[in-house]
Amino acid sequence: MKKLRRSARLVEMTQYLLFRPHTLIPLTTFADRYSSAKSSISEDLAIIKEVFESEGLGELMTMAGAAGGVKYIPKISKAYALKAIQKICIQLDQPERILPGGYLYMSDILGVPGVVNEIGKMFAAAFSARDLDVVMTVETKGIPIAYATAQYLNLPVVIVRRDNRVTEGSAVSINYVSGSTKRIQTMSLARRALKEQSRVLIVDDFMRAGGTIKGMMDLLQEFRATVKGVGVFVESGEVDNEEHLVEDYISLAKLTDVDAKTRKIAVQPGNYFM
Amino acid sequence: MKKLRRSARLVEMTQYLLFRPHTLIPLTTFADRYSSAKSSISEDLAIIKEVFESEGLGELMTMAGAAGGVKYIPKISKAYALKAIQKICIQLDQPERILPGGYLYMSDILGVPGVVNEIGKMFAAAFSARDLDVVMTVETKGIPIAYATAQYLNLPVVIVRRDNRVTEGSAVSINYVSGSTKRIQTMSLARRALKEQSRVLIVDDFMRAGGTIKGMMDLLQEFRATVKGVGVFVESGEVDNEEHLVEDYISLAKLTDVDAKTRKIAVQPGNYFM
Repeated sequence: MKKLRRSARLVEMTQYLLFRPHTLIPLTTFADRYSSAKSSISEDLAIIKEVFESEGLGELMTMAGAAGGVKYIPKISKAYALKAIQKICIQLDQPERILPGGYLYMSDILGVPGVVNEIGKMFAAAFSARDLDVVMTVETKGIPIAYATAQYLNLPVVIVRRDNRVTEGSAVSINYVSGSTKRIQTMSLARRALKEQSRVLIVDDFMRAGGTIKGMMDLLQEFRATVKGVGVFVESGEVDNEEHLVEDYISLAKLTDVDAKTRKIAVQPGNYFM
Repeated sequence: MKKLRRSARLVEMTQYLLFRPHTLIPLTTFADRYSSAKSSISEDLAIIKEVFESEGLGELMTMAGAAGGVKYIPKISKAYALKAIQKICIQLDQPERILPGGYLYMSDILGVPGVVNEIGKMFAAAFSARDLDVVMTVETKGIPIAYATAQYLNLPVVIVRRDNRVTEGSAVSINYVSGSTKRIQTMSLARRALKEQSRVLIVDDFMRAGGTIKGMMDLLQEFRATVKGVGVFVESGEVDNEEHLVEDYISLAKLTDVDAKTRKIAVQPGNYFM
């Protein structure tokens, strides 16, 4: 690559780092890339670090030594996250979202990539220290959230299917009881989709009693995997505590009331903000 | 916001633009944000523009006048895209991917957010001039591709379901014949998920004869919507031309041979590169 002036180098390095979160980049990579001295690169990184941190974009960790380099860790401040969630809560609060059975229509909100990316960034920030191998979810509405989270953590995604599709090869299936409908359902995961003993972050869009997430946890036992964290976008607070099947989780929003008769909804920020 | 030096401003503006593709940003937004003169902002943008264009990140379009500003249009050069696809083709070429029935295991490749983002960027570049309202796909494996594409185009995503879930409200359902299995299947879309007369880009992970995509096109007629483009990640070239149900589409890779007996696979770049 041709030699760049500092101003151009800053633009180039900024985009390079933003697209490679949680990846150790040796200083020599940049020095070679721009035919620049390592000392100049270090000065550039100091400028980028200051802006990233003051803008709440995340941390730029520099590691000294032969195996050293720089790593971009996406973060989001709690204050900024809370503001974003409060905006979403106002959107969720609309009576026309109430569907038969007390369900809530959220597909429009989860259909906006920008919103999904913010949710992913919040989960990535919340779980970034947990030493993870993979992000897992169950089809369908958890999928974009899982990809957004995994992108910021630089991890692959594994999708549990609600049926056993022929295109996945041999699979492990389990039956589970959906906490809310009490019906027996099946979920399955292809054998080759997950290495044994993986460390897994589970995310999903909605949790009532937690039957679906408990199902994923049981499924993971078949792979001798460890659940290192559980994140849900919206939890329903209408469930008695004794009915809860999952205890240790992070929620970004909490539905405290959905009344199909009076058409009233109450949503508040979830336990992540408590 | 406090006044920033040019170097810090460049870092800040780069990330601001990268996260807001296809969005017109008035120069006054930047001028106010950094308490800088518009002339300085224009000089900054010229530097960013040069780097974005020489790095193949995309175009920075500047519009003059009262309603003017700057817009970042993500692009990817054909040469770079071809290299990325060739790397994917080598991965797809492994005999252990062949599943019973001549299917191909791709979930590991589509489980990597970085790969999915590149696919999305290619579709965004290919269809960016088509004046679109929404990106549509059918569950399950098309979903991450749809979000990646939509993110670069600054559009919402609509997901067609293979069954009619209670959590979506009233829906339009159609039956369609899967081109490869010849079975009758159902797909449905919530009434409120799509405005009438929307201009739609359809994307999916795999197309054999095109029955599923034809199904989505039929479904869109019920919403009086217009299909403005069709993009598939991998198409199967094993189908006779007369069997093709969809004519106008872009494919990124083409499976020319899957032989479960000899365990041979042949994959090549798709029609986008022809």
